[in-house]
Amino acid sequence: MNFTIKPINKDIINELKDIIDNKTKPIGSLGKLEDLAIQIGQIQNTIHPDLVNPHMLVFAGDHGIAQEGVSPYPQDVTYQMVLNFLNGGAAINVFCRQNNISIKIIDAGVKNSFEPDQNLINAKIGNSTNNFLKEPAMSKEQCKKAFFKGGEIINSLYNNKCNIVGFGEMGIGNTSSASVIMSLICNIEIAQCVGKGTGLDEKGLLNKIKILDQAIKKHNIGNDPLLILETFGGFEIAMMCGAMLKAAENNMILLIDGFISTSALLIASKINSQILDYCIFCHLSDEKGHKQMLNYLNKEPVLNISMRLGEGTGAAVAYPIIKSAVLFLNEMASFKSANVSREKDD
Amino acid sequence: MNFTIKPINKDIINELKDIIDNKTKPIGSLGKLEDLAIQIGQIQNTIHPDLVNPHMLVFAGDHGIAQEGVSPYPQDVTYQMVLNFLNGGAAINVFCRQNNISIKIIDAGVKNSFEPDQNLINAKIGNSTNNFLKEPAMSKEQCKKAFFKGGEIINSLYNNKCNIVGFGEMGIGNTSSASVIMSLICNIEIAQCVGKGTGLDEKGLLNKIKILDQAIKKHNIGNDPLLILETFGGFEIAMMCGAMLKAAENNMILLIDGFISTSALLIASKINSQILDYCIFCHLSDEKGHKQMLNYLNKEPVLNISMRLGEGTGAAVAYPIIKSAVLFLNEMASFKSANVSREKDD
Repeated sequence: MNFTIKPINKDIINELKDIIDNKTKPIGSLGKLEDLAIQIGQIQNTIHPDLVNPHMLVFAGDHGIAQEGVSPYPQDVTYQMVLNFLNGGAAINVFCRQNNISIKIIDAGVKNSFEPDQNLINAKIGNSTNNFLKEPAMSKEQCKKAFFKGGEIINSLYNNKCNIVGFGEMGIGNTSSASVIMSLICNIEIAQCVGKGTGLDEKGLLNKIKILDQAIKKHNIGNDPLLILETFGGFEIAMMCGAMLKAAENNMILLIDGFISTSALLIASKINSQILDYCIFCHLSDEKGHKQMLNYLNKEPVLNISMRLGEGTGAAVAYPIIKSAVLFLNEMASFKSANVSREKDD
Repeated sequence: MNFTIKPINKDIINELKDIIDNKTKPIGSLGKLEDLAIQIGQIQNTIHPDLVNPHMLVFAGDHGIAQEGVSPYPQDVTYQMVLNFLNGGAAINVFCRQNNISIKIIDAGVKNSFEPDQNLINAKIGNSTNNFLKEPAMSKEQCKKAFFKGGEIINSLYNNKCNIVGFGEMGIGNTSSASVIMSLICNIEIAQCVGKGTGLDEKGLLNKIKILDQAIKKHNIGNDPLLILETFGGFEIAMMCGAMLKAAENNMILLIDGFISTSALLIASKINSQILDYCIFCHLSDEKGHKQMLNYLNKEPVLNISMRLGEGTGAAVAYPIIKSAVLFLNEMASFKSANVSREKDD
């Protein structure tokens, strides 16, 4: 699986910095907004960037590993929450409506089937992955198919002028996949990568660590990113991974959400590391491993407000901040245009 | 100066928590958004809070202490920036436009005068404060008048149904006032309270500390909040302080911005500590002293994105996050209404 991701334009940095430093404000005083404006200008290769037709993709899939009691919620919740998304009642719906982000729900591999719906994309690879404590979560072919479908979905957004896309997910059991991916990619022992997910108690947490440790030892596959994804991933994680790579190939801005979304990116970044320059890390999740994932990638989050809901909610809530970055760059007056005096030469 | 601020309703907490815990999401997974929803519900004493007619007030004033070289910008910049605000070219204009926040600029004591403008409120107490290295910044009567004017401005917003108001400011030299206020209220030595403001170099910073230390020693007034305000404050800080107290009295939500805005609140909270329950601390400023101010008040900021621009920009950029909190409370489905299963009883 080859993706041709252009390096972002480093030459435009000085031009962007110069414009920003001439805005009517002390140098550097917009902090992280200035970094975002520069990054987005580089991605779009322009001093007049624009966010067009923003979309949130919520990839849903079921996980065989859920049979091992790694989540306090029953597996049916994946299906039920997809219906909730389609009815507009979930947190991600609220935040997308608020911020004028279009939402698409992708059935990447939910156990049950759905009636057609204008906001649902049927991209089902299978009815749940296999239980990776016993066998690989998916076949090589399924993984490839998930990548391809993810790319197709992105291409259709891209053809509708969308240039910024958020990556969210739903899947009971998917923090287990993400924890194993983190452990193997970042080379951090599994106990450090496992958190309470949707709300395990201490006993549940210890069980989750034990199960995942057993699974890692059973397969003993090393650190090949695609093999890790096939063996321990979810259909939604694999499809997100393919979608992320295609989005970067299409020069789009990638809004990375929390723990699961970043686990897909960990795989994607091993396939093509150029992708990282296209990513905005929207928030630091309260799910235990996320901080170390961001440390591994050497990236700072925009928000740190103790969210750990998934669905893309951290990205949707952070979106207005990202918009603020683009707007100040485009709309603020300069010292010259506003006739404001500059610093004194002491 | 007496302000009657009602304690916020503690009884409604359990009802709000119960509603939030029944939303289709893991318990606690919206983090800080849940805290904000509860606080706003308490302030408005309802389980259906609403943000109505949001306003940003930008209080502007000049400072006699600016004559001592405590800022790298010439004093005229206060006047020039007010014109920039009125022309819509400043950062605060961009973020208020983005987030549908009405903006009012208040001339609390700028050296120069302005032509009438629909977004300008003329509340001039004087043409700049006195240089507090030599004499008190303002008289008792001026301080009282500033408080009264601040209250009047808030009452007029309140009469137009506004129930949420941000407090921003502009005034070359006003980080000097804020640093001294912080030092005397929080009992922290002045060197720890002084930052680079709009961008002093190391030499300028040492000079600023020396000047402020001299001024504190000269007046030697102890920690009476109003006496501190009269002696070292700015007209914009005093007016903001009166406005804040009146806003809390009117049951409005107060959006606190950065270093200067919080210095006004430090004074206000000593006059009536109930005010603190009405405040949302929108961001952590990069101006050195702000972190310790928030520590002193035992409050956590919503954003931490290294901004230090003032004008109310931190509050305006954080506003959508606060709106997200209200919206999830009002719009998300419950487990019951969406037919989603709850945690398993192990």
